[in-house]
Amino acid sequence: MAAVTSDAELPSPARLEAFSDGVIAIAITLLVLDLKVPDVREGALGMALRQQWPAYLGFTTSFVTIGIMWVNHHVLFDRIERVDGGPLFANLTLLLGIATLPFTTSLAARWLRAGDDGRIAVVVYCFSLGLVSATFVALWSYLARRPELLLPSHQQLPQLARRRALVGPIAYAVAAGIATLSAPTGFAACVVVAAYFIRPHRPRETLKEPT
Amino acid sequence: MAAVTSDAELPSPARLEAFSDGVIAIAITLLVLDLKVPDVREGALGMALRQQWPAYLGFTTSFVTIGIMWVNHHVLFDRIERVDGGPLFANLTLLLGIATLPFTTSLAARWLRAGDDGRIAVVVYCFSLGLVSATFVALWSYLARRPELLLPSHQQLPQLARRRALVGPIAYAVAAGIATLSAPTGFAACVVVAAYFIRPHRPRETLKEPT
Amino acid sequence: MAAVTSDAELPSPARLEAFSDGVIAIAITLLVLDLKVPDVREGALGMALRQQWPAYLGFTTSFVTIGIMWVNHHVLFDRIERVDGGPLFANLTLLLGIATLPFTTSLAARWLRAGDDGRIAVVVYCFSLGLVSATFVALWSYLARRPELLLPSHQQLPQLARRRALVGPIAYAVAAGIATLSAPTGFAACVVVAAYFIRPHRPRETLKEPT
Amino acid sequence: MAAVTSDAELPSPARLEAFSDGVIAIAITLLVLDLKVPDVREGALGMALRQQWPAYLGFTTSFVTIGIMWVNHHVLFDRIERVDGGPLFANLTLLLGIATLPFTTSLAARWLRAGDDGRIAVVVYCFSLGLVSATFVALWSYLARRPELLLPSHQQLPQLARRRALVGPIAYAVAAGIATLSAPTGFAACVVVAAYFIRPHRPRETLKEPT
Repeated sequence: MAAVTSDAELPSPARLEAFSDGVIAIAITLLVLDLKVPDVREGALGMALRQQWPAYLGFTTSFVTIGIMWVNHHVLFDRIERVDGGPLFANLTLLLGIATLPFTTSLAARWLRAGDDGRIAVVVYCFSLGLVSATFVALWSYLARRPELLLPSHQQLPQLARRRALVGPIAYAVAAGIATLSAPTGFAACVVVAAYFIRPHRPRETLKEPT
Repeated sequence: MAAVTSDAELPSPARLEAFSDGVIAIAITLLVLDLKVPDVREGALGMALRQQWPAYLGFTTSFVTIGIMWVNHHVLFDRIERVDGGPLFANLTLLLGIATLPFTTSLAARWLRAGDDGRIAVVVYCFSLGLVSATFVALWSYLARRPELLLPSHQQLPQLARRRALVGPIAYAVAAGIATLSAPTGFAACVVVAAYFIRPHRPRETLKEPT
Repeated sequence: MAAVTSDAELPSPARLEAFSDGVIAIAITLLVLDLKVPDVREGALGMALRQQWPAYLGFTTSFVTIGIMWVNHHVLFDRIERVDGGPLFANLTLLLGIATLPFTTSLAARWLRAGDDGRIAVVVYCFSLGLVSATFVALWSYLARRPELLLPSHQQLPQLARRRALVGPIAYAVAAGIATLSAPTGFAACVVVAAYFIRPHRPRETLKEPT
Repeated sequence: MAAVTSDAELPSPARLEAFSDGVIAIAITLLVLDLKVPDVREGALGMALRQQWPAYLGFTTSFVTIGIMWVNHHVLFDRIERVDGGPLFANLTLLLGIATLPFTTSLAARWLRAGDDGRIAVVVYCFSLGLVSATFVALWSYLARRPELLLPSHQQLPQLARRRALVGPIAYAVAAGIATLSAPTGFAACVVVAAYFIRPHRPRETLKEPT
């Protein structure tokens, strides 16, 4: 009874999702602030726009990455029936990571072509992505320990999902390692990791247990 | 059964729409950041404000265009019963296009009056609008091939809607062509295309089949 | 039947409200971007912060004004059962007006203390507020002509509400007139007009008809 | 009956919450605009990023603080059945306070290390946090006087919640006092106050009355 009262005091998953959707939608749209209108003399616009290619690359990459994170976020919260303090603060950390992406994307795009500085910038970019993916692991681990928070039909899910989510922080750590050698290669590694999570979940795995 | 499980893992149309509404609402409001308070000596404010007319024109045009896109976005997603990976990523591309509009609008407004540079700027503006309209075509085409994703009473719709949506990318390509000759005329062509889509759908067409 | 089909193609009031809430929430929060961290030498921060008082005044005034507009927006759309093209585009104009407020507020705050320029700036501020209030009149007038769009129990409302809404554009025109003589007095007049609309509706009036 | 009509004219708690969620989500995400990409010569990026530590500290602190405010905001509005003018305008004041946080956070972070100026900056930061916490007190006090606005099972709550909310403005006043002596210590005090409100409510207290 105490537990129920305590849970009743926390926001419902629906509200948590609505708030998270808001933060994610804003972070994904703020990425555009890194696309700057060139302030050059007449006749030089075409060249100035072309030289901004790392900004377009960063915008597109981070936009798609945040989009994929959003899909995976919903896959997770759609299965939760009740939220308690654990997921609540893990989710806040996840949103904090996503909210830093307009900054770290801009940093990586601005410095990508500079030698030592480029490596620093891409390592920071990997770190912010790694923070988000680590909170996914934390969330699935928490749910694996407390399956009663999930909808009844999904109580096997956290085991599989956690194993899959673990790929994230490990891969971003590898990408950061690569970035210390070559900024562009490290950046490319981040794109590959995001692509891995495009399909939020492999149906085969969920179908292992008989239905 | 596998298909159902797979679909159940994807966000519902309601969530997709809520997230899209968020991104579109933010993009449409960020347009205001291109209206700058003039930093001129005293006595010169009136003149400085008048000279900013391309910024007001760009703001108004893009605001109304994004508003029209929002209406058409709802017309499409209101008819979808289930979402799978196709619409999900087409929609992400559509949002990416809309999110670039504060940048491309600002670019077109800032450079509209400059000769060669103006043409480049308006071509870029046409391109971002064309990207959005092309994803509308992709979405309706996908639905035309998979009518089972639609509400039962709307399964004829995609054929008609796709044909109508095709006007978008073609017309924006024409506008870009015009812009290579004259930036202001190309910009005006973009306004005309948006006006064409004001009515999200012609009722006559839907009523052709007996009810 | 044709009318129903046509209406069904337009977003529901619920969606229109959700989208409007998004735009209004963003515009009201973007006002903070006009509060700038002073970039002065050490020891001068206190003075620099005090000299920014018109920015704080503008922020507070516009925040409360937009808040009041939001309340009145809901009072209107809560009573609408179906939306057609008229309210849809009137609402888009209303949102356009609200979206300009971070710009016009910043303009008025920055130039309030400058003689001729201050008058220009406050007239522009009155104009953006007047645009919003004029679309409220347009919306209520439209509903007065088409009471079938309203919930059955509220079909007397538009007559009363329109009369009350008319105060808005007239009062903002007067405020603009005052601003041509004195910028601060014109600005103060805008505050008074907003205060008039704090109570979204006078209960007495709605109770005139027997219940 | 007059009261009911009057209430019916005001937004429902659901809408008030949705709008508040929007403003809070935007304010929390706008904090990232204070993280600036260093514009330094090549080779100096690492150092420049490290020297920005107060900006990261401010971002993290205010992000978590706003997150905690959001949780407490929901705990309050989840228990309200009907909203009238009192909570409506108290809530607007609360949102105004939250909307100023990107500015006051940036101010505190930028000036934290400067002697006298740092103290001014942190006092302003305490003030904006104190404003938010004071409106929580005002809201709970209002509900304590009008328990009929609450869901039937929660009518004892406002007494306890108000007592607990009172800690906020008092503690922020103390933090401001400390900040007049030492800016960093005052800032640390703000962190402690936020931590106090992490658990939105102590279950023990609600369970005092027999169930």
